[in-house]
Amino acid sequence: MTRVAIIGVGHSKFGKRNDASLRELAFEAYKEALDDAEIESTNIDASVVCSATHYDKQRSPAGVVAEYLGLNPQPTFNVEAACASSAVGLRTAWALVNSGLHKTIAVIGVQKMTELPSEEIQELMGRAGDVMWESPFGTTMPAYYAMYATAHMARYGTTQEDMALVSVKNRKYGAKNPNAMFQKPIRVEEILSSRLVSYPLKLFDCCANADGAACIIVSHKDLARKGSKIPIWIAGLGLASNPMSLAGRKGPMTTFEVTKKAAKAAYGMARVGPGDVDVAEVHDSFTITEILNYEDLGFAKPGSGPKLLAQKETELGGKIPVNVDGGLIAKGHPVGATGASQIATLVKQLRGEAGDVQVDGARVGLAHNIGGIGMYAAVTLLKS
Amino acid sequence: MTRVAIIGVGHSKFGKRNDASLRELAFEAYKEALDDAEIESTNIDASVVCSATHYDKQRSPAGVVAEYLGLNPQPTFNVEAACASSAVGLRTAWALVNSGLHKTIAVIGVQKMTELPSEEIQELMGRAGDVMWESPFGTTMPAYYAMYATAHMARYGTTQEDMALVSVKNRKYGAKNPNAMFQKPIRVEEILSSRLVSYPLKLFDCCANADGAACIIVSHKDLARKGSKIPIWIAGLGLASNPMSLAGRKGPMTTFEVTKKAAKAAYGMARVGPGDVDVAEVHDSFTITEILNYEDLGFAKPGSGPKLLAQKETELGGKIPVNVDGGLIAKGHPVGATGASQIATLVKQLRGEAGDVQVDGARVGLAHNIGGIGMYAAVTLLKS
Repeated sequence: MTRVAIIGVGHSKFGKRNDASLRELAFEAYKEALDDAEIESTNIDASVVCSATHYDKQRSPAGVVAEYLGLNPQPTFNVEAACASSAVGLRTAWALVNSGLHKTIAVIGVQKMTELPSEEIQELMGRAGDVMWESPFGTTMPAYYAMYATAHMARYGTTQEDMALVSVKNRKYGAKNPNAMFQKPIRVEEILSSRLVSYPLKLFDCCANADGAACIIVSHKDLARKGSKIPIWIAGLGLASNPMSLAGRKGPMTTFEVTKKAAKAAYGMARVGPGDVDVAEVHDSFTITEILNYEDLGFAKPGSGPKLLAQKETELGGKIPVNVDGGLIAKGHPVGATGASQIATLVKQLRGEAGDVQVDGARVGLAHNIGGIGMYAAVTLLKS
Repeated sequence: MTRVAIIGVGHSKFGKRNDASLRELAFEAYKEALDDAEIESTNIDASVVCSATHYDKQRSPAGVVAEYLGLNPQPTFNVEAACASSAVGLRTAWALVNSGLHKTIAVIGVQKMTELPSEEIQELMGRAGDVMWESPFGTTMPAYYAMYATAHMARYGTTQEDMALVSVKNRKYGAKNPNAMFQKPIRVEEILSSRLVSYPLKLFDCCANADGAACIIVSHKDLARKGSKIPIWIAGLGLASNPMSLAGRKGPMTTFEVTKKAAKAAYGMARVGPGDVDVAEVHDSFTITEILNYEDLGFAKPGSGPKLLAQKETELGGKIPVNVDGGLIAKGHPVGATGASQIATLVKQLRGEAGDVQVDGARVGLAHNIGGIGMYAAVTLLKS
């Protein structure tokens, strides 16, 4: 296999971005990535646009994004896997470079969500579940994840306070991230006293809909080595699927089988294990999700995710710092951009450019996304 | 590069399929492809679902399709490039196999369109154009292509009768295709006297919205050679883009630059030229489109597409038979399925299994898709 590296990353400000359209958000991230890689647009020979559907009026956004970014006539297309869209876009770009079809590709994750009323977004999100047998009966995203939360509480005695600590940690780091939507720390009491969304999840257990974009530029090893930045190598690319319907799933709702399978594939490809990971970005769509992810990624034993968190092992200075950029909970979750945002964070970490939140000597980074209610999971391993 | 082959194809009946949901359409095509390849579902190690967005309620269809087809926990995701979706899906699958990530992939193009009222579909199709600067002003798909038609008429003297001959030819072959939506030949007078959709395009100059699915199974050369069927090799994979907005395009509207660029890439990769192509499937979304395609793919000189058609060179027995399965005009155009449908037809041709419409001794096949109003084009070359 040809080695493929990340040579540049860019990230827009996430949040309610009334000042920028979809194409303008994409441009912010793309321009920063080009500058970061110190290359020109003419060096990009394909683009992969990653965006979940229906959140804004523009269908087939690759068309308008490629035009606005000056990426015609190079190939472009859309890759979508709900919340894992740009992780899958990165995997696709890796394959396109590795197979020799392209040399340097811009993976652009972008989402414009906040023009829609929140109720409409909830209905749309439900439709990333099975529209024939589940979503018509009220399964919104918080409702889906709430079922996982109650199952974990019932089986392991996990509490709402345990979950709230995820939000406390991630908001603490979000306060140091100028691109985050929420830049104010939060206390456990504020979370527990926030309004109930779907028992046991309170408002501040949930990530927020947001607008935003992130861009990753991947390149063939020969070009990457000639670049100005340390190449960050794509070492593992795990992807797995699970039945979309909860009714079709087996086993307890205290774990995402799909994450375990994607992690196994990624660890195998990169020839590392959970103990080798220095810094991780995991999909904290809800506080409970981050706890499940600790366990499913092998950072903690089943049921002991809350303990890992309480002992501050997932904070800076701990065994495995997780979401030290604020995660989805502080950054906001512009669906198609989230996977690329995680990768951008890891690239900075592995280059030693993460400033205040730098994990000392980080050499191996892991990014994890869950798509929808767990029909997809992607685990990406990067090495410096 | 590793050689990658097509080892099985499947095709649902296209048309107004009130009897089948999206997942059921996908299953029809997938099951037939498995049977054609004489393999089991367990041999498929990833799936790529290709479907344009918004035509039915289900978001992120790969989730529900993979579940219904029994393709969990293998990786799955969605690839979209408007009308070129499954051509791009095939290219992506080729890269995934070629790069060593997977051995055998099912590319499933599927679309469920006819549950929506026709006006709503037209509005949606317009939103595959630029929603900021063009689609709000009335540019539906027929309106877009009508502008190309009038430009060709003005520059080369092309007539409505010339265009009607595309429909006559394709409906003639559609009558021999049991999967086609329209299985009755049509006469020039019927086309010319059908109602005007957007001058100069009449109703029977336009392809119809349809439900349907087609599936292509691609496999690594070592497995393909062990299979029961003659492997059909993927030899060329051209993809290009053009500005989504007409305002952003240069040059006359008598040609699709994007097709020329995709064709150049595909011919170069496969080391063949237009004269080597034995049988072609081109994107006849409207009659004018097929004429432009003749010219842009190098089958005819600029302006002489109508002559090539009138001389019956694109019929069976002619120099380059085109759309002898009926094309979009007779088969219907279930957007995400169309590219895979073309490939399925070519595979049968190159295996010598095309029955009544077999092109004698066909060795090289070309498939061509335009995405949207020409922001994407894909050209795929297959060899036996």
